Amino acid sequence: MNKKPHILITNDDGVNAPGIKYLWEALKPHANLTVVAPSQEQSGVGLSITIREPLQIKKIKWATDCDIWYVTGTPADCVKLALSIVLKSPPDLVISGINRGSNAGRNVFYSGTVAAAIEGVMHDIPAVALSCYDFHEPDYETAALHAPSILEHVLNHPMPAGTLLNVNFPKRTHGVKGFKMTRQGKEFWMESPEERSHPIEGHRYYWLGSKQAQFNEHEESDIVWLEKGYVTAVPVHIGELTDHQHIETHQHLFEKHFCK
Amino acid sequence: MNKKPHILITNDDGVNAPGIKYLWEALKPHANLTVVAPSQEQSGVGLSITIREPLQIKKIKWATDCDIWYVTGTPADCVKLALSIVLKSPPDLVISGINRGSNAGRNVFYSGTVAAAIEGVMHDIPAVALSCYDFHEPDYETAALHAPSILEHVLNHPMPAGTLLNVNFPKRTHGVKGFKMTRQGKEFWMESPEERSHPIEGHRYYWLGSKQAQFNEHEESDIVWLEKGYVTAVPVHIGELTDHQHIETHQHLFEKHFCK
Repeated sequence: MNKKPHILITNDDGVNAPGIKYLWEALKPHANLTVVAPSQEQSGVGLSITIREPLQIKKIKWATDCDIWYVTGTPADCVKLALSIVLKSPPDLVISGINRGSNAGRNVFYSGTVAAAIEGVMHDIPAVALSCYDFHEPDYETAALHAPSILEHVLNHPMPAGTLLNVNFPKRTHGVKGFKMTRQGKEFWMESPEERSHPIEGHRYYWLGSKQAQFNEHEESDIVWLEKGYVTAVPVHIGELTDHQHIETHQHLFEKHFCK
Repeated sequence: MNKKPHILITNDDGVNAPGIKYLWEALKPHANLTVVAPSQEQSGVGLSITIREPLQIKKIKWATDCDIWYVTGTPADCVKLALSIVLKSPPDLVISGINRGSNAGRNVFYSGTVAAAIEGVMHDIPAVALSCYDFHEPDYETAALHAPSILEHVLNHPMPAGTLLNVNFPKRTHGVKGFKMTRQGKEFWMESPEERSHPIEGHRYYWLGSKQAQFNEHEESDIVWLEKGYVTAVPVHIGELTDHQHIETHQHLFEKHFCK
């Protein structure tokens, strides 16, 4: 890294969450940083964008030498408004995190943290998501320790257009056994609703719950490597999702079906 | 179709939107239907799930012979609670729509309508999203007219695990020139924020805007065929998003980088 890169930092745990401050501290010596993050926690909002309500952006201070904004919306809103309102030119990289809780497997679809990276890639800006596997005791220190090195790797070895890097850090108790660039597992945020009743009106309501759907995971999946205590990095392609094989076998059948 | 299939209908425009009622009317003679849809409009929420607030489910009536529920959450919440609370066994198909506005190109990521189909596929249930290209004058009648035939095709020619069918109907003024199973285009919901000021407090706020990012689209993309007046059906694969090619070329470099 010769000239310091310009990095847009965001997250889904909110501008005042510990993970984003760890990330900012860790990257400060290595890059010019702008933080644009949600004013409130936005876990599980995926690539939600706010189109039915207006958004506010406000500059705040964590320390004397920082450039921090909050947006009263989602992580995707933050990236959109950072690019169109806050920044004069696109950053070299979007880094989202450090998230409290795993975004491995298919949780990339539900995660607001990964969604901010998706939004970066939609705008042709390289993007990385950083998350701690352990929701209850997230090991932000370890993630922050390795963040500059991940940044260096991504800048020196750019990812293809349409691909982001989804990094997860293992449990604190495991330590870091090693680093693996590996494939996406199957696990995802499954419903396990819990019924309660309203204390006054008596009607039923539900908490969605947070069971992880379990699968027989591929031995090279991020889920398996994380469990073994490895930092996992999955290159996630969101450029085009067409199932070309299905088109090849079914295009003719489909089009013929409507000519009856 | 011998035995009537059981279909879960949902959407993102809300349980009282016209599109979902058109869909219900159209499919009623051909299937056993359960509707579980958001109580309020949820456009643009992607695969957002509600984990920081409780959810209510309530049975309502459109007509005497219907099984309709609303959920005070997102389309993904609706599918999750339909599967875990409302239905005794998984449906044969999830159909989401008929959406007001296009979900072609890369808008599959932002769309709540497509997200409900993604949630279905996550649970190994075949899923279809139906949307009208024209936001201002959605041609629900034409979409409803062809919905039973699309249903028939999908049931007779199952999609692979991990793949949903994303169908968009052209502008009313174009009529339907034909049907195309085709590839995903690039267009997506770009920010074009509009600044306003609060009438009393005077602070600035922004509407995110709804410009579509324009690209040089592939001639076989849904965007191009829709413009020509075709109904487009894109098989969208969300099973695994790993960029395997990047792993092949970069796995060694990445892992070596951390052994310095």
